[in-house]
Amino acid sequence: MFNVGIVGYGNLGRAVEEELRNNNEFNLVGIFSNQNLENVISPKEIEKYKDKIDFLFLCVGSYNGIEKNAAKLIKHFSFIDAYDNHVNLKKYIQNLDDLAYENNTVAISACGWDPGLFSCMRGLFDSLGYTPYSFWGKGTSQGHTNAIKTIKGVVDAIQFTVPNEEIVESIKNGNDEHIGKHFHKRECFVVCEDYDKERIEFEIKNMPDYFLGYDTSVHFVSQQELDEMKSFSHKGQVLTARNTMNFSLNLESNPHFTAKVMIAYSKVIKKLKSEQKYGAYSIFDIPLKSILNKDEFEYL
Amino acid sequence: MFNVGIVGYGNLGRAVEEELRNNNEFNLVGIFSNQNLENVISPKEIEKYKDKIDFLFLCVGSYNGIEKNAAKLIKHFSFIDAYDNHVNLKKYIQNLDDLAYENNTVAISACGWDPGLFSCMRGLFDSLGYTPYSFWGKGTSQGHTNAIKTIKGVVDAIQFTVPNEEIVESIKNGNDEHIGKHFHKRECFVVCEDYDKERIEFEIKNMPDYFLGYDTSVHFVSQQELDEMKSFSHKGQVLTARNTMNFSLNLESNPHFTAKVMIAYSKVIKKLKSEQKYGAYSIFDIPLKSILNKDEFEYL
Repeated sequence: MFNVGIVGYGNLGRAVEEELRNNNEFNLVGIFSNQNLENVISPKEIEKYKDKIDFLFLCVGSYNGIEKNAAKLIKHFSFIDAYDNHVNLKKYIQNLDDLAYENNTVAISACGWDPGLFSCMRGLFDSLGYTPYSFWGKGTSQGHTNAIKTIKGVVDAIQFTVPNEEIVESIKNGNDEHIGKHFHKRECFVVCEDYDKERIEFEIKNMPDYFLGYDTSVHFVSQQELDEMKSFSHKGQVLTARNTMNFSLNLESNPHFTAKVMIAYSKVIKKLKSEQKYGAYSIFDIPLKSILNKDEFEYL
Repeated sequence: MFNVGIVGYGNLGRAVEEELRNNNEFNLVGIFSNQNLENVISPKEIEKYKDKIDFLFLCVGSYNGIEKNAAKLIKHFSFIDAYDNHVNLKKYIQNLDDLAYENNTVAISACGWDPGLFSCMRGLFDSLGYTPYSFWGKGTSQGHTNAIKTIKGVVDAIQFTVPNEEIVESIKNGNDEHIGKHFHKRECFVVCEDYDKERIEFEIKNMPDYFLGYDTSVHFVSQQELDEMKSFSHKGQVLTARNTMNFSLNLESNPHFTAKVMIAYSKVIKKLKSEQKYGAYSIFDIPLKSILNKDEFEYL
């Protein structure tokens, strides 16, 4: 039995909560969030739970706040996160590694489906000599949606990631010379305070790592129109030329699937702690054997 | 630089040889086979090469001889194999584990695409709560083809594995209650000595683990007809209901792809030896980081 907590209570935190309720290996000790809700505890109280919790699910958004929260929490808690700002990941994990090592804790970072499972496929395909290409969507990117929502004047938003199907087909037909940023369109739908549209569109399109350099379109819509577009479904694939290797996901709920990945991989934390292997890890460090439900020979 | 040898010089051994010739991390010290060829060395000589070889690629067929060869070799050499008799794997690896541990060697077993990569996907999908289903083909199964060839009176043979596409579609549509042995047809084409057809067909259809219980058909053809059917292409997929997760391979050359997997994973052997982590491992024990071509952050 693992005694765990959840930090952050947005879509991902709620999905982790639901998945844990169906899993008798986990005992959910508390949910920590600044939201004013009966069933959550203020993050200010979290240190009091230090001895009651084996590890945390860190479900704060990547764009706003996770680095700061992670650096504080790792001094007292082990955790797993699905940090998804690919560009900052190296610095983020290396910083956590130092802090975790000093504080006898363990972090597993960037462990969702991308980064996470898709990262594994990219590494595996490349190590076998096949250039990997990643496509996402059509679907809502939670990370990009959250990034838009941090802009002043934005009331609500959705970002759809749409793969360029012509490029997908060209790769399947054997073309191996594509370069990444034209693979996708990023379609943003935004509800905002009226007077601010131009600045908001400019800020979205120029947001580094998330939108800058991508084929980004911004559409302003009413809250009702936006609500009708909302969906947690998402999909994606990592493939190689001639489709020699292909890994694809078709998800009814993006946050629930990310939660499932985090929960499966979180089980290794207690083992790493008990072996005093403190530090920050990525999915590349974890042998699959550590997360299996059954004996490996059931799958071989 | 890894100094390596190849034991067995059939399709897989030749594919490993070709792949190694294109890879400047490896120095191929020798090929060991009983075949009467200029470029191969008799297996009787292999112990003389003990100090010149870091590890071997064990490319002897699974159906006939690999267990015996493996048990002898592990006393003097570390190796990687793609042993593919799923039913015997547990006993095989556990036996090797004891011997490797006693003799300060390392074995990595069952490390091709199935068992191997497909095993990983089955374990991963199941650990996330999705029942995995495996399909192979249409393509030539080297293991099953070799198994037929061991039957007395068989001159040459090919076994095509053909997936039942209705079942594949039913799983993609969400049906999650299938049971394995009806997933495939096994189509065997056999060149044989004329008088023996009935016995040969009986022996094929009743071969445990390989054909018994499967929808197996046996067709007797001429050598010329068989030669025209020969192809190294193969394909397969591991998927879950509603196609939520899907890993597929479309291979131009089955033995060359198996060779690539073995070569990628073989690189970990020297590291395990230097850390004195002797024993037998499966692909489930090896963290992906050990086989990456580049820094993990290039893929995250």
